[in-house]
This record gives sequence, structure tokens and C-alpha cells, in this order.
Amino acid sequence: MALIVKKFGGTSVGNLAKIRNVANRVIKSYDQGNNVVVILSAMAGVTDGLIKLAKQITDTPQKRELDALMATGEQTTAALLAIILQSMGYKAQSLLGFQAEVRTDCAFGNARIIDIGANRIKTLLENRYIVVVAGFQGSDLEGNITTLGRGGSDTSAVAIAAALKADCCEIYTDVDGVYTADPNICKHARKLEKITFDEMLEMASLGAKVLQIRSVEFAKKYDVPVHVRSSFSEEEGTMVISEENGMERLIVTGVTYKKDEARITMKKVPDQPGIAAKIFTPIAGAGINVDMIIQNTRQGGQTDLTFTVPRDDFKHAMEIGRSVAKEISAEDVIGDDGIAKVSVTGVGMKNHSGVASKMFSTLASENINILLISTSEIRISCIVAEKHVELAVRALHTAFGLDKTE
Amino acid sequence: MALIVKKFGGTSVGNLAKIRNVANRVIKSYDQGNNVVVILSAMAGVTDGLIKLAKQITDTPQKRELDALMATGEQTTAALLAIILQSMGYKAQSLLGFQAEVRTDCAFGNARIIDIGANRIKTLLENRYIVVVAGFQGSDLEGNITTLGRGGSDTSAVAIAAALKADCCEIYTDVDGVYTADPNICKHARKLEKITFDEMLEMASLGAKVLQIRSVEFAKKYDVPVHVRSSFSEEEGTMVISEENGMERLIVTGVTYKKDEARITMKKVPDQPGIAAKIFTPIAGAGINVDMIIQNTRQGGQTDLTFTVPRDDFKHAMEIGRSVAKEISAEDVIGDDGIAKVSVTGVGMKNHSGVASKMFSTLASENINILLISTSEIRISCIVAEKHVELAVRALHTAFGLDKTE
Repeated sequence: MALIVKKFGGTSVGNLAKIRNVANRVIKSYDQGNNVVVILSAMAGVTDGLIKLAKQITDTPQKRELDALMATGEQTTAALLAIILQSMGYKAQSLLGFQAEVRTDCAFGNARIIDIGANRIKTLLENRYIVVVAGFQGSDLEGNITTLGRGGSDTSAVAIAAALKADCCEIYTDVDGVYTADPNICKHARKLEKITFDEMLEMASLGAKVLQIRSVEFAKKYDVPVHVRSSFSEEEGTMVISEENGMERLIVTGVTYKKDEARITMKKVPDQPGIAAKIFTPIAGAGINVDMIIQNTRQGGQTDLTFTVPRDDFKHAMEIGRSVAKEISAEDVIGDDGIAKVSVTGVGMKNHSGVASKMFSTLASENINILLISTSEIRISCIVAEKHVELAVRALHTAFGLDKTE
Repeated sequence: MALIVKKFGGTSVGNLAKIRNVANRVIKSYDQGNNVVVILSAMAGVTDGLIKLAKQITDTPQKRELDALMATGEQTTAALLAIILQSMGYKAQSLLGFQAEVRTDCAFGNARIIDIGANRIKTLLENRYIVVVAGFQGSDLEGNITTLGRGGSDTSAVAIAAALKADCCEIYTDVDGVYTADPNICKHARKLEKITFDEMLEMASLGAKVLQIRSVEFAKKYDVPVHVRSSFSEEEGTMVISEENGMERLIVTGVTYKKDEARITMKKVPDQPGIAAKIFTPIAGAGINVDMIIQNTRQGGQTDLTFTVPRDDFKHAMEIGRSVAKEISAEDVIGDDGIAKVSVTGVGMKNHSGVASKMFSTLASENINILLISTSEIRISCIVAEKHVELAVRALHTAFGLDKTE
């Protein structure tokens, strides 16, 4: 008898008929003798609708109240699934975040899980209940309702699976697994059977929107095997597991891209200690996340400094950049929001040289100019012109032998 | 500086514009220097919509889950009001039932309040917060969400007012007070300036749908002055207060009626000890509330026994009655669901004779036949044919001098 945590996203619980489908899947696993904990998102569109309602009042609704408001979405689906399961003759109970003892910090709207008590879940499982937990929510030490940020139900699921030492955490979603590239732009993309936590982390942060990054961090930390699969088919999806689990090391696992960045270059910055702090402190202070930072040495004690920011923050970052440039006597600030990032990821890179050069030569052979480069141990990312990004993904996918063979 | 609890019902918070009106009323009182706690219902129709959703799954959704589902309605309005108050520059915080420490028993769907901690509310008030509490809900000792039954937000409000020793509990509703009779059927009905808890209790149970009965019981027990008034006007409503508060004693305060009852008579029941128990035990066992019971002595050791039940339970009660009649050798069971109850209520009755005879003669003068009579210290009720009830209300209203004088 295994203990399985199953998480269903918003499109999987979009109406009563779909919640019934969820119930059938849950029962199938339960009837096989497994203990089952189900984590649910709100119905697709409900959370956005609630945010919209609050924004009709003010552009900046207080986050504590917004969390209390948004938490109703998962409360609704959890209660409905419990009622369906009961009506089918099964013992079931819904739990809200605070009832499942999902304790978080008090960063409303983007809270982090501190720990999970899970005593109540364990007692219910011992009595063969199907436990339905409202995802996305927890409560802080004062008992305020908190939410875990976009995609937070993934994190709820993995964290609860970790607390229960579950055998597997299944993430049911509207795609059937993790692909070597976005199938919408790369028709040769293949579904991966397995991927490591580290690769998934890189790919999640690089634009593969399958799992919330934090849920992968949790899964890695507590070594919870995660199975990403489709709500609408019985097919096996992709297992996200630790590298140690005897997995064949691919050199490159996937090619990802991200279009929502912009590039800013400060020209002829005086190359003095403390200059970087002068530039990035006000940007951080404005709540803007800088992704890449590249500094080229120039002659005459001057340097060019380039960095990327989310495209939504581009205008604001440019304003800050211009004002800092004046202060530190930099020559000019230029910006470009027509860029995109293309990345190749794979744990196999650690032990293989030549991945970077293959990436650069592949892009060159397609006449794609590389604007910026950054790397990690298992990833290489290039900034290119936005118009080239789909072509770049396809070329790299072929070059690294990822295309499916019919 | 007074401490005022204000409760707004579903029609008063039906949409964002109406919740803004609530905010304005709250702020007005707060700006006068009062400490304000607001109790909200769900938006009109929302609770019924959620019940309907659950009933699409099964006719008998489990009550624990239904409570968790329904509680989202008040959670939503409370958060929205807090956001509106904050957007207007006021310190405000919403609290759910469990956060406001509204502790109940575990009778899901119709829970009773055991006690209210209110520490958190007190701390917020000390810091001059406007506290917005989700009405209708609490939590049991295990932390399950419970609801307090139809109109439960009234009880939330009065119970919280009692726990805080508030100066007044204002119930804002879509009527502007308590009337001497239903203005829809009696055009001469007057709004009462004051009414005692006991009169309100009788009138609430007799069909005046202004306040949930339990809320009045709470108000009486803890001597919380309740002000029933309109959300949509500034006019004073009706004060519900204790008898001791130097109030002029009217002989009759109001005339009420109720149409949702039915009458069952068992004929020629053997007049033996234990017979009543044999009849009413299975009826109680079926969850049917019996209202009046009247027994007439007959000759030959036999009696006729008549009782009333809610009209919804009439068929079921008739079936039980017939089976019991066979068992105890009663002659016959006859039923009538075309009846109604008309009542006159007033604390002044305690010290005035002649109220009953005036009631009977008034009905007689209109040729209305009285089918059953029951009385309490401050009330006389007559069962009449349903078709006569409006006429009975108007005749009694005039006879007891309640008609308004222009």
C-alpha cells in the first residue's frame, strides 16, 4: 500500500463534471489499496476573477485581505470534491490550509512554507479517509490566511508529500509531461520520461511553465519523486527525480526560451569599487529583479555594464538607470526590449565539454547574433533578438539530438 | 466613545457599490469617535447558490463540507469591505469565524456558539482598527468550520457584541424596523420604536422574519441592546431591549402570522398513560418539530389529540400518525394543511385580563372559525383556515388599537 499525493490544477477542476473526473481518478487509486491525499487548485479563472474584483476597488489591495479573498477559491473546490467522494460512498474530508497545519511566514501573497504538521492528515489516512486539501493556502503563526503565490498549489502538494513521506507526488495538469522544448514552436519536441530536480529547476526558471519553481526546490530538498502527468489521459507523464536515482545522463535535456525580458546597457561606467552597488541598489529598491549582469572591461578605467530585467519593469529600470548614470558620470544608457533568452539545460553538461561551443556554432550557422551569454553548471543561456528565438529553439533542439524519431 | 457592533445582511452587501455604502456608514460612526466592529453576511443569493451547487451533486451533501463551502460567502464580503475601508485610508482587518474565536459545537449547518474569545478583536480595537468579521460562521473544538443556520449572522453579531460588552448591536437590514404587523398585508401597520426581548422572541418564532430567534435569545441573556434598522436610510429603527429599561407597557405589541404549518388529529385515542409518548416519539425520531399539542377529554376513556407540524413534514407525519394509530387502536387520523396561525404578542398581557376574549370576539365578528388555541404568558395564538389569515391580522390589528393614526 502506497501513500500518494495527487494535485489537480485549475483546468482539471474547472466545473462539477471535471471535479467528478478527478473523483474517479482518485477512487481508482484508492481502490487499488493506496492511501490518497488530494490537493486542489481553485477552478480555472476563479483566482483571477477575485483579484479583478479587488482591483475594482483599488490598484493596490492590501495583501492580507487579498489572500483571505483568494483562499475561498480552493476552499470551494476542496469542499465540492469531498461532497462528490462522499456521495459515491467513500470516506472523505476536506481540509483548509490552516486545518492541514500548513504553517507559513507572513509574506502575504507569496508566503513560504515553514513547516507542515500533518497530524490531522495522518489520523484521517489511518482511518482510510481520502483527504482533500485546499492548495495554494496556509496560515501564519497568528492564524492569518496566507497564499503561496502563482502555482502555489504545486508547492502545497510537494510540501505535504514531504511531510507525509509520501511515495509519490503526482501533479495532474493540462499538459502530459515535461517536453524537450515547447511543442508549440518545436514540432519535434519529445516528452521526457525522466528529468532531474536540478534540470527541472533550471527549466522552470527558464520558462517551462509546468511546475512552480518552489515546488521543485521542495521536492529536491526532501527527495520527493514528482510525477507530472495529464488529468485527461491515463498515459504516464514525466518523473522528476533526484540525479542519484540511476538515471541515464543526457547531455542536454531540454531547450527553453523566455520572452519577457529586456536588456539595459550603461556605457563607459567609471570602473571603480562600489559602482555596481550604486547602480543595482536603487533598482533592487524599486522591487525590480535583475536576471543577468555582464561587465566588459574597457580601456581607460571605463567599463560597459549590461543587465536584463523583466520586460514589465523595463521603463522603470531605464528611468532609474538614467538618473544613476548622471550621478556616476556614465556616458550613456541604452535599452532594448526586443530580446529573448534561449537556454539549453542538462546535468550531463557537468562532464561534457563542447556544449557551449556547439550552442554558439549552431546559432551562428542560422545567422543568429548572440547579445549576451550566461551559464550555470548545467545550463547555458543566450540572449538573442526576439524575432530569432523560435528558430534558435528548433535549431538547438535538432543540434543536440533531441528531435523525436518516428 | 462607544463600542458599536454593526451587522449588515445579504441585500446590504449585494455588490461592490452596496459594500461601499456599508463602508461609508461604518466610517461615519468611526469618525464620531466610536469603536466599530462590523459583521457581514454573504452577498444576497450567494449562500443559496452554493447550496444549489452542492445539491447538484447529491440531495444530502455532508454538512461538514457544506459548511466549509458556504463559509466562503462571508469570507468574500469581509475581505472586500476591509479592502474598501483600507483604500479609503482607514485601518481595517477582516477576521474569519475561527480568527475571531467564535467557538461553536459541532452541529454542522446549525451550530450553537459555545463562547467567543474576542481577544484578537479587542487588541485590534485598542489600536483603533475597524474590525470586519465574517458572520454566520465559527469553528468547533477541532478547528472544523461550522455555520450557525439561516440568519446566523444576526447571532454572530449579538454574540460578539455580548463578548465585547458593546454598547449597542445594530442590525442593518432591508426593512426599517419591527412592525406591529406585516405591512404587506396590513396597510395600517406601524413601526415600533421599542420592543422587549421577550416580545421579539415570540414574534420571531411566530413569523416576523426580522431577526434570527437565537440572536434574540443571546441578546436577552446578555442584555445586549439591539437596534434593528435600515441599511438604506438614516432613520431610527426599532430598539430591542430588556423589559426593565423603563418602557411603556403596551398590552399588545404586534400581530403576526405563519402559514407554513399543518394540523393532524388522531380521533378516539385510548386515554391511557404513555399514549402521548407512543405518538410523539416516532415523530420526533423523524426529526419533525411539533408545535402545538391539544388534547380534549372525551367520554368512554377516549380522547381526541390534535397537533401541528411544519407543512413540509405534513405527509411524513401523516404516515407516521397512521401507523401509530393502528398500533394504539385509535379510530382515525385526519389532517389539514390549509391552516395558518395568527398571534397577538405583548408583555402588557401579563397584567391585563380580557386580551384572549377580545381576540376571540374579534375573530368571531369576522366569522372566522378558531380551530386551535395556544397561549403563553405574553402571547395568544389561534389556528384558523389559511384563507382567513390576512383578514384576521387586519381585524386584530385594529381591535388592539395598533393602527397608525395619520
